[in-house]
Amino acid sequence: CPYLICEEDAEPMYGRYTQELGVYAKEEAARLRESGQRRSVSRTLDLLEYDKGRCAKCRICTVRCQKFLISRVGEDWIFLILLGLLMALVSWVMDFCIAICLQAQKWMYGGLDSNVFLQYLAWVTYPVVLITFSAGFTQILAPQAVGSGIPEMKTILRGVVLKEYLTFKTFVAKVIGLTCALGSGMPLGKEGPFVHIASLCAALLSKFMSLFGGIYENESRNIEMLAAACAVGVGCCFAAPIGGVLFSIEVTSTFFAVRNYWRGFFAATFSAFIFRVLAVWNRDEETITALFKTSFRLDFPFDLQELPAFAVIGIANGFGGALFVYLNRLIVQFMRKQKAINRFLMKKRLLYPALVTLLISTLTFPPGFGQFMAGKLTQKESLVTLLDNRTWAKQGIAEEFDYIGHSEAWKHPQVNVFVTLVLFIVMKFWMSALATTIPVPCGAFMPVFVIGAAFGRLVGESMAAWFPDGIHTDGTIYPIVPGGYAVVGAAALSGAVTHTVSTAVIVFELTGQISHILPVMIAVILANAVAQSLQPSLYDSIIRIKKLPYLPELGWGHHEKYNIRVEDIMVRDVRYITLNCSYRDLHNVLLTGHLKTLALVESTESMILLGSIERAQLQALLSLQLGRPRRLAYIRERAVEDKKRLSVVSNDSSENSSHRASQEVRFQVRGHSGQRCKKCFQPFKAHYFQSHRKKCLQNVTAEFCMSSKITEWEEKQLDEQVNFNNCKIDPAPFQLVERTSLHKTHTIFSLLGLDHAFVTSIGRLIGVVSLKELRKAIEGSVTVKGAKVRPPLASFRDSGTSSSENEATELHKLWDRHKSMPLPREHTPSESDEKSQ
Amino acid sequence: CPYLICEEDAEPMYGRYTQELGVYAKEEAARLRESGQRRSVSRTLDLLEYDKGRCAKCRICTVRCQKFLISRVGEDWIFLILLGLLMALVSWVMDFCIAICLQAQKWMYGGLDSNVFLQYLAWVTYPVVLITFSAGFTQILAPQAVGSGIPEMKTILRGVVLKEYLTFKTFVAKVIGLTCALGSGMPLGKEGPFVHIASLCAALLSKFMSLFGGIYENESRNIEMLAAACAVGVGCCFAAPIGGVLFSIEVTSTFFAVRNYWRGFFAATFSAFIFRVLAVWNRDEETITALFKTSFRLDFPFDLQELPAFAVIGIANGFGGALFVYLNRLIVQFMRKQKAINRFLMKKRLLYPALVTLLISTLTFPPGFGQFMAGKLTQKESLVTLLDNRTWAKQGIAEEFDYIGHSEAWKHPQVNVFVTLVLFIVMKFWMSALATTIPVPCGAFMPVFVIGAAFGRLVGESMAAWFPDGIHTDGTIYPIVPGGYAVVGAAALSGAVTHTVSTAVIVFELTGQISHILPVMIAVILANAVAQSLQPSLYDSIIRIKKLPYLPELGWGHHEKYNIRVEDIMVRDVRYITLNCSYRDLHNVLLTGHLKTLALVESTESMILLGSIERAQLQALLSLQLGRPRRLAYIRERAVEDKKRLSVVSNDSSENSSHRASQEVRFQVRGHSGQRCKKCFQPFKAHYFQSHRKKCLQNVTAEFCMSSKITEWEEKQLDEQVNFNNCKIDPAPFQLVERTSLHKTHTIFSLLGLDHAFVTSIGRLIGVVSLKELRKAIEGSVTVKGAKVRPPLASFRDSGTSSSENEATELHKLWDRHKSMPLPREHTPSESDEKSQ
Repeated sequence: CPYLICEEDAEPMYGRYTQELGVYAKEEAARLRESGQRRSVSRTLDLLEYDKGRCAKCRICTVRCQKFLISRVGEDWIFLILLGLLMALVSWVMDFCIAICLQAQKWMYGGLDSNVFLQYLAWVTYPVVLITFSAGFTQILAPQAVGSGIPEMKTILRGVVLKEYLTFKTFVAKVIGLTCALGSGMPLGKEGPFVHIASLCAALLSKFMSLFGGIYENESRNIEMLAAACAVGVGCCFAAPIGGVLFSIEVTSTFFAVRNYWRGFFAATFSAFIFRVLAVWNRDEETITALFKTSFRLDFPFDLQELPAFAVIGIANGFGGALFVYLNRLIVQFMRKQKAINRFLMKKRLLYPALVTLLISTLTFPPGFGQFMAGKLTQKESLVTLLDNRTWAKQGIAEEFDYIGHSEAWKHPQVNVFVTLVLFIVMKFWMSALATTIPVPCGAFMPVFVIGAAFGRLVGESMAAWFPDGIHTDGTIYPIVPGGYAVVGAAALSGAVTHTVSTAVIVFELTGQISHILPVMIAVILANAVAQSLQPSLYDSIIRIKKLPYLPELGWGHHEKYNIRVEDIMVRDVRYITLNCSYRDLHNVLLTGHLKTLALVESTESMILLGSIERAQLQALLSLQLGRPRRLAYIRERAVEDKKRLSVVSNDSSENSSHRASQEVRFQVRGHSGQRCKKCFQPFKAHYFQSHRKKCLQNVTAEFCMSSKITEWEEKQLDEQVNFNNCKIDPAPFQLVERTSLHKTHTIFSLLGLDHAFVTSIGRLIGVVSLKELRKAIEGSVTVKGAKVRPPLASFRDSGTSSSENEATELHKLWDRHKSMPLPREHTPSESDEKSQ
Repeated sequence: CPYLICEEDAEPMYGRYTQELGVYAKEEAARLRESGQRRSVSRTLDLLEYDKGRCAKCRICTVRCQKFLISRVGEDWIFLILLGLLMALVSWVMDFCIAICLQAQKWMYGGLDSNVFLQYLAWVTYPVVLITFSAGFTQILAPQAVGSGIPEMKTILRGVVLKEYLTFKTFVAKVIGLTCALGSGMPLGKEGPFVHIASLCAALLSKFMSLFGGIYENESRNIEMLAAACAVGVGCCFAAPIGGVLFSIEVTSTFFAVRNYWRGFFAATFSAFIFRVLAVWNRDEETITALFKTSFRLDFPFDLQELPAFAVIGIANGFGGALFVYLNRLIVQFMRKQKAINRFLMKKRLLYPALVTLLISTLTFPPGFGQFMAGKLTQKESLVTLLDNRTWAKQGIAEEFDYIGHSEAWKHPQVNVFVTLVLFIVMKFWMSALATTIPVPCGAFMPVFVIGAAFGRLVGESMAAWFPDGIHTDGTIYPIVPGGYAVVGAAALSGAVTHTVSTAVIVFELTGQISHILPVMIAVILANAVAQSLQPSLYDSIIRIKKLPYLPELGWGHHEKYNIRVEDIMVRDVRYITLNCSYRDLHNVLLTGHLKTLALVESTESMILLGSIERAQLQALLSLQLGRPRRLAYIRERAVEDKKRLSVVSNDSSENSSHRASQEVRFQVRGHSGQRCKKCFQPFKAHYFQSHRKKCLQNVTAEFCMSSKITEWEEKQLDEQVNFNNCKIDPAPFQLVERTSLHKTHTIFSLLGLDHAFVTSIGRLIGVVSLKELRKAIEGSVTVKGAKVRPPLASFRDSGTSSSENEATELHKLWDRHKSMPLPREHTPSESDEKSQ
């Protein structure tokens, strides 16, 4: 299977003290460094002002400029302009290379027209080689570059750290892999990968810029910049700044900060502008216009009575979009499940892409089956012809209409244009679904867009054939424009596949005409309504296939989410440590639990939540208590005592390392710090052995005696109370109430990018909810649509309003406790279970 | 001053247990009611199935339909369709009425062309009467309807409850007031009020629909629907669904939930569709097209070398937008500060609108000064002429060009068209700024839009005069299109005034052409950059003038916000109650504090935060302890004892009401429940006096004795420990850490719509931050741009990293406390003050 998973737990944006401090330290350091720079600059300035030479003024000016520039580098707009510029260049260069690749194929195919077999060989070999190279290159350099990248960006923007997804290697692999993949002429898109490439650009640029100023090391700022980068990606791919911003918001965000809006618009506009200006400078265009410019009539774009046809396109495309997502997932799952195929493919990784390419390019071979499905047209050419404002099938004179340029490809002497269109739609549909499973950097937006346009054109041509003089009844004849239907169809199908509304805007920007706004909006909304009720979006589907740690959206009819409460989904068996626990307790908790963060409560009786501590912190505490320095100190102390008492061995003997190492291993509770400690120790140990081998041998007996004493010492150390002084505690971990509804929990988790939240009842810890539980609860109630999914405990609630009573009695207990006696023993852990009865 | 304030504290969306419970109860009730309905329906069904009559099948069908419909009524899309339909109708009817009003004025003016004085009288009286009526009507019915409504919606969507802003009265006042105001021909807009009207519609529809299903009583759902309604408002005002959604998001939201996106699009599209279909049905249009359709050439919309001119428009309009906001605020503040004027205007409330209208309509009188500024054109007509695709000033043949229709108004025999345009811009600029301060329902978007278009046209005409054959150098002549400049100018100025980017999209939808996308985007972004660095947006400016409880946005360069921490802005003197406090403490706290929510801590020593309790809850507790029933019981008890001892008076005498009333008043800590209690008691008291007057007189001496005993009883009651059993406690109030930066605090407050948050340090309450402090901190650092504003305490932090040490020692204290003794006395309240030193 081509998908690779690199899962990490979410890094929350909220109130995490540890991280907060880290960020603070970084900022401070950066500020100090910056102010240091400034000081040196101003010192040079002072020195220069004393200098009375000829060049002094000049140099003062230079230094001042330098100062000014350094202070400006930190500003957002500089970053955004650089990002836009870079992405426009990347996009333009890639388009240029892809065009050359495609031209080369045509040239080869055209040059060999004497021999059909040679022609076929050239037609087929070229894409197979390109795709295989792309797959192999990506596989070797950075397997993370495979696929669209939007699902990963969605996960990253939610706050989850996906390692290796934003590295330079991935950037190179993605750019070169994508160029080759698109140059092969397969039905693949560049839009999804462009979102990823733009994010890579932003991340790398951020790293580069952080050499100049400290602000680039701020975590939340980088996330904001990534969001802007996604917009740039779409914007410079289609030269559609507005659509780019909206599409990237819909596809990657759950909650969008309006204050980041301008960033996206600014960067995307600049990028689209440069992208189109490059085309003008290259003499491809006379001035800045849309990428797929149409020229429908403005005065009467469509008739009111055509609206039902548009609605039909919308609904049909809704079903089509859902089918596409389903088909795509089916293919991936089929390849995965068939173990024989899977094993074979895993061995010969490049065979699958080669076979798929072979199949698709064989079927599109123009003199073969391709002649019935406009096989010789590239994706771009077919889109241009589909959006043409002329009617292809004029009733009666269907044979005589003059195809100009590429439109010829749709005309076949024996076959009707309708048959060509139907064949094109059907074949391209499964081809695109299949091609997007190839492990190369590729998107599905553009192929889907073209299929949608073809379907729209089909409906439009049918309408034109049905009403040759248009529908309008009052005097003037306004013939039907099938190109308009193609626009509507393209927007609707791509909207259905991606579950977005903003494809409408992208379509307007791509065609440069907005006259069909209402039909497009109606079709897109209908398509969305149908598709969303049948299947997840393509990106969510990939997220599920890849098992990325993402929180799914709540479905449309989420009435039942108001009825599920946190108490139904939370884990009641929380691992916690008390303020006065011993190191032994700590040790046990660390051994049994596996959560990244542990709750700190006042005491087992009160269960009052004081904060949370990260696992690593606790491991550090434990190794501090039982680690090398203290161990050494103890042994030295013992040795001094022994010397006094026995006067047998020298002072050095107490430092026996082999024993120490074994002791240390015993308490390495899967901790990194321990391992690092051991590594540092290795050279020292070797050295020690060489020089002191003799002494060691002498001290074996003394050592055995020591060993038992050390075990004793350890036990004593373990029984000591934990000192939390040097431990970073998050004093305000996120808390929920038992009564919080699933709907609200989902909102809070996605708003704050939480990984887990503690459930408390009047300050007392009673449970914990993590992303996992939430995901399970949502997916449980989302997938089963008809039946009302209720967790087993929810039924108890309906039998009576016992819950609020419980709460009162619990408070009562707490209150009584304070009134009567200081801290009586209660059986708290089982209490939470009782409550549910 | 025309502005009215109705301030209420924010109602948070997060974890508020009390509200949660309330909502829960409501939901349960609704569900019960619904299920009751269903049961009755299904019972009828069962009964019917036994019935073998002829109509039985028919009736079964009807009942099933009814059942189905009731179950569907709760779905979102039904609501959105109804809302869209309603708003489209309202918008269309209003437009119709406004058009009639404007025609009437023209007719009157045209009919009296024999006498200039009569003409002037008609021209001036008509708007004065309409505006005065509008102002008076609004003032009497619902003063909340005054103004645009967007600032209020922004505040409401943030979670603050503004009473009276979403009532039926306001709806009526706004619709009628707006129709009259726009019918007067003043430079006022309908866009802002339409946002308010749509929200009113949604709120009223919600109320109406809640008769059918329970889901309509859900608080967060209503907020979601209000957000969609804002989109509908803009959408059906301009027939611009996409721009409407985006504009409403930018103007009203801080964080936008992408899952609500489709609601806005769906409702706005449906509304815009119906709005335009009504125009087609009314034979105004042949088919659905844009509101201000343009017909610029498509093949070469603009030259690359024209871009600097577009950038100039953007920058100039940025300054213009900031100036407009400043001017508008200046006028309001001037009217407020001038006490003499203010006092006079307060007495004669309708004089100000009348005077302003008189001034403006005098200046636009066509035969007078109006002839130099196209005074006879209505707003809509001037916009249509400004967007015209013909050039007005062709060099050399400027006199001969043929104005068609309204364009004539711009032509003056003596004066150049440039002078007319400049006069138009300057006059309309201050007129619009002045007119929008009139206390009628009105917006500023449309007037600003027209001024922007005029400025763009001015630049375009200048360009056309400068380059009569266009700038393009390669062969073909492409003359400059000043209409395109007008489009750019309109988008830029309205974007600058409202601080939005989506005016670009609105402009495309209004004109039906997207060919100028890049110039428009560039100009809008530049205008925004300039305007945002100079002034707040018009809506934020009004929010400040009205002192609405809103959290301002963080400025552009918010580097310093990372340095301000919560500890610098929090209030350290927190009012709290302890778990074992007496009723006397409660009483004292309630008397001194004024916060709506009080913190509940474990004890004064530990200060561990257990939760928060609403003020009203505590008042209820207090009145329960000292209220009428307990008082009665005590008195009755005493009486029984007295009877036994003295056998003097009858049992009834103990119920002396006058005394009781006075006693009750004593403990009414501004509580509602107490007042209600008293009211209930009134009739009873009267009855009592009539029937028992004689007995009362007898018992005076016994009473005096009783009175002192009751005081004694009260004192005893007050010393009792509070029983929190029946009190609703929010067990998880929002907590922050001292170290949380202002930036993050702002994010969390705006994300969750918080009103206040407690600051804790390892579970211990050390401070509280409310919206007020946050606002102060942000505005402090936002308004003073040059100097770095640092709160006084921030400087201490830099001198050393003492804070993290403090934290450690504090934890140490807590830890020591647990180790050594159970609960030692510490001087906690002053501790937090010490820390800052």
